[in-house]
Amino acid sequence: MEKGVGSDLKAVLVIADGMADRPIEELGWRTPLEAACTPGLDQIAKNGVSGIIDPIAPGVPPGSDVSTLALLGYDSLKVYSGRGALEAVGSGVEVLPGDVAFRCNFATVDKNLVVLDRRAGRIANQDATKLSASLQKVKLKKSYNVTFLFKNTVQHRASLVIRGHSLSTAISDSDPEATGKPVLEVKPLDNLPEAKRTAKIVNELMQEFHKVLNEHSVNQDRAKRKLPMANMVLCRGAGTIPKINPIYEVFGVKAACVAAVPLIRGVCKVAGMKLLNVKGATGTIQTDYMAKARIAVEALKSNDFVLVHVKATDVASHDGNFKLKVEVVEKIDEMLHFMLDHVGLDSTYLAVTADHTTSCVTGNHEGDPVPVSITGPYVRRDGVAEFGERSCAKGGLNRIRGMDLMPTLMGLLEKTRKFGA
Amino acid sequence: MEKGVGSDLKAVLVIADGMADRPIEELGWRTPLEAACTPGLDQIAKNGVSGIIDPIAPGVPPGSDVSTLALLGYDSLKVYSGRGALEAVGSGVEVLPGDVAFRCNFATVDKNLVVLDRRAGRIANQDATKLSASLQKVKLKKSYNVTFLFKNTVQHRASLVIRGHSLSTAISDSDPEATGKPVLEVKPLDNLPEAKRTAKIVNELMQEFHKVLNEHSVNQDRAKRKLPMANMVLCRGAGTIPKINPIYEVFGVKAACVAAVPLIRGVCKVAGMKLLNVKGATGTIQTDYMAKARIAVEALKSNDFVLVHVKATDVASHDGNFKLKVEVVEKIDEMLHFMLDHVGLDSTYLAVTADHTTSCVTGNHEGDPVPVSITGPYVRRDGVAEFGERSCAKGGLNRIRGMDLMPTLMGLLEKTRKFGA
Repeated sequence: MEKGVGSDLKAVLVIADGMADRPIEELGWRTPLEAACTPGLDQIAKNGVSGIIDPIAPGVPPGSDVSTLALLGYDSLKVYSGRGALEAVGSGVEVLPGDVAFRCNFATVDKNLVVLDRRAGRIANQDATKLSASLQKVKLKKSYNVTFLFKNTVQHRASLVIRGHSLSTAISDSDPEATGKPVLEVKPLDNLPEAKRTAKIVNELMQEFHKVLNEHSVNQDRAKRKLPMANMVLCRGAGTIPKINPIYEVFGVKAACVAAVPLIRGVCKVAGMKLLNVKGATGTIQTDYMAKARIAVEALKSNDFVLVHVKATDVASHDGNFKLKVEVVEKIDEMLHFMLDHVGLDSTYLAVTADHTTSCVTGNHEGDPVPVSITGPYVRRDGVAEFGERSCAKGGLNRIRGMDLMPTLMGLLEKTRKFGA
Repeated sequence: MEKGVGSDLKAVLVIADGMADRPIEELGWRTPLEAACTPGLDQIAKNGVSGIIDPIAPGVPPGSDVSTLALLGYDSLKVYSGRGALEAVGSGVEVLPGDVAFRCNFATVDKNLVVLDRRAGRIANQDATKLSASLQKVKLKKSYNVTFLFKNTVQHRASLVIRGHSLSTAISDSDPEATGKPVLEVKPLDNLPEAKRTAKIVNELMQEFHKVLNEHSVNQDRAKRKLPMANMVLCRGAGTIPKINPIYEVFGVKAACVAAVPLIRGVCKVAGMKLLNVKGATGTIQTDYMAKARIAVEALKSNDFVLVHVKATDVASHDGNFKLKVEVVEKIDEMLHFMLDHVGLDSTYLAVTADHTTSCVTGNHEGDPVPVSITGPYVRRDGVAEFGERSCAKGGLNRIRGMDLMPTLMGLLEKTRKFGA
């Protein structure tokens, strides 16, 4: 078969979480991406076609879940059904259709249920695991004909899945998302009996959890060690499994994902992608970037499409640490340099983008567009010489929506279906 | 009346079928359009506003029918109702609402109904006409209260229209679209009785056609002359007339079309455009480009909008003949040069685009965007100096959808309605 034509074509998409930014005064009004030394990213731009992407729509700051869904080709505005289920699935918790799942935090509250620490001092995994085991044994006072699964993941993070008839995701969070504020009562968000019932169940469960945690030996021990007690569970993002067709059905490709954070792993899992495990990939600043690159290159042998997600850029952004963000971008650049050398660019398309803009100044996700570059055998190279928010805006892709990227890539792979005669 | 203002404004849209391409190694990684010498096209870009168009959506490879519908301002995703009716209408066969029409081929099959030649040796028109006359006399064994029209067009091409109550387009093709494969049984594609009934009628008709063709004197004569027998009719693209408002209702303009291929003529006919006949316009590489240009210029006297369609670029692309494609582009350029000199650019807008990308490397329609340039009295000239896939991407129109082009042109003609106060 001729090079670059037909079914041997592959694609890698690298998503750097929150990598895009706004110009920063201390960087001479450059963005961290523009200020960083990025020969790998620039090579992709130079030998590629570039543009900017609105993950959802201009001005709309997306979460990483809705943006990753969009970048995988789904219409998030239609299919997104809450964070909870995606994160649970990504943590290895089974979520079935009809289940309602939550993202949870172990937290520290005072006797008036005012939140003192939303992360219980970033509680160690072994403590959280012991607490979780006890919570799983909790019985609801009244039987609602429901069961639940509670599982801690990393540090203070956990998932809760409620299973039973007549459940609803139309309920509010108990997590006030700030310290110094009381734990919120979960309330129904519509007038249907399912929402009232679900809110009641969750409130009761949270009360029972609080009782068990308050008296738990792990917490008594933490108090002795002057560590914040993990005496409350905060829940948010009630969600169900989105009803989407897996990528292999939409485009007929075998797809795999290299990601450490549960939320992104969950998105990829519901999209029918194979989740690859990488030793040393942690979803933190200290993640093993090169290990991710090596696994991604390896995965290309048995997959048509590989998604690589790196969380560290977003972590640095939320901390407002633009110097660290520059360093992380340069680590990602090394990772891309390795990929450029090893993916086989005569038959593989390599694309790089961010899932959203995160401003180091505001510390927030922003609705500004993100840059994208695609290199590979038959792209229309456009003369863009650097990968950056402003340089890519001059590229040949112009401005597209997040959900247009996957059809663009799959079109290059000859995997999009013809419409019409 | 001041020049370039008001009701004397006109527009010509030239659509070169499949003219856009991907960079080709043998052309120094230029596209055929970029490699061709195109002073006329470049003049349009230089004195115009340019951009790129996604005929349907990024990455989606469109057929010429859905793309032309889109370029005429219609939302193909909503109104497209199959190829068959459009091609029949374009061949001069009447198709009424409720009729189901098919694109057909005369083909050669062996005694096991395995397809040996999908075009029966590109059978000559006079043979096909005699065979068609006999087919039109076929009676279905069982009366379904339906009638049919069978008409050959050019060489092996033909149209079949079935008329009667309770018909459906939700049926599969009998054409396997490959040699060495058996003729397919037409099957219903939904569970409604209309689809079952229509499939049954078509299958029975194809069997009767086969009997008549097998014994036909034309075929016995072809066998003697060592020509492939046209002993089968293959059908595909079951379709009805799309429900669309004609262009004169949408924009209040008189519109005409200069096109040779039945599919495009059909699209223009259902859009309420006048179909102009051009001696020497054949839909092939050898078409009389200049005759088309002259008729288009002439048609401007009595029409506000004239569409000129040239098929040859697509023909060269499907054959993978990029050198020929360069030559065809240069022929089209001469045609445009003539138009530039004769349309009267102080009161006429001249636009040029392609209906889709066709790759000379893959031979397929691709989902990559196509370039567009519009020149005329009041466009915002943007400094783009050449007409090409990549140069136009830097133009002032940026990236638009196919269905946005017609309102853009009609806006320049003061023919779009104000929305709001």
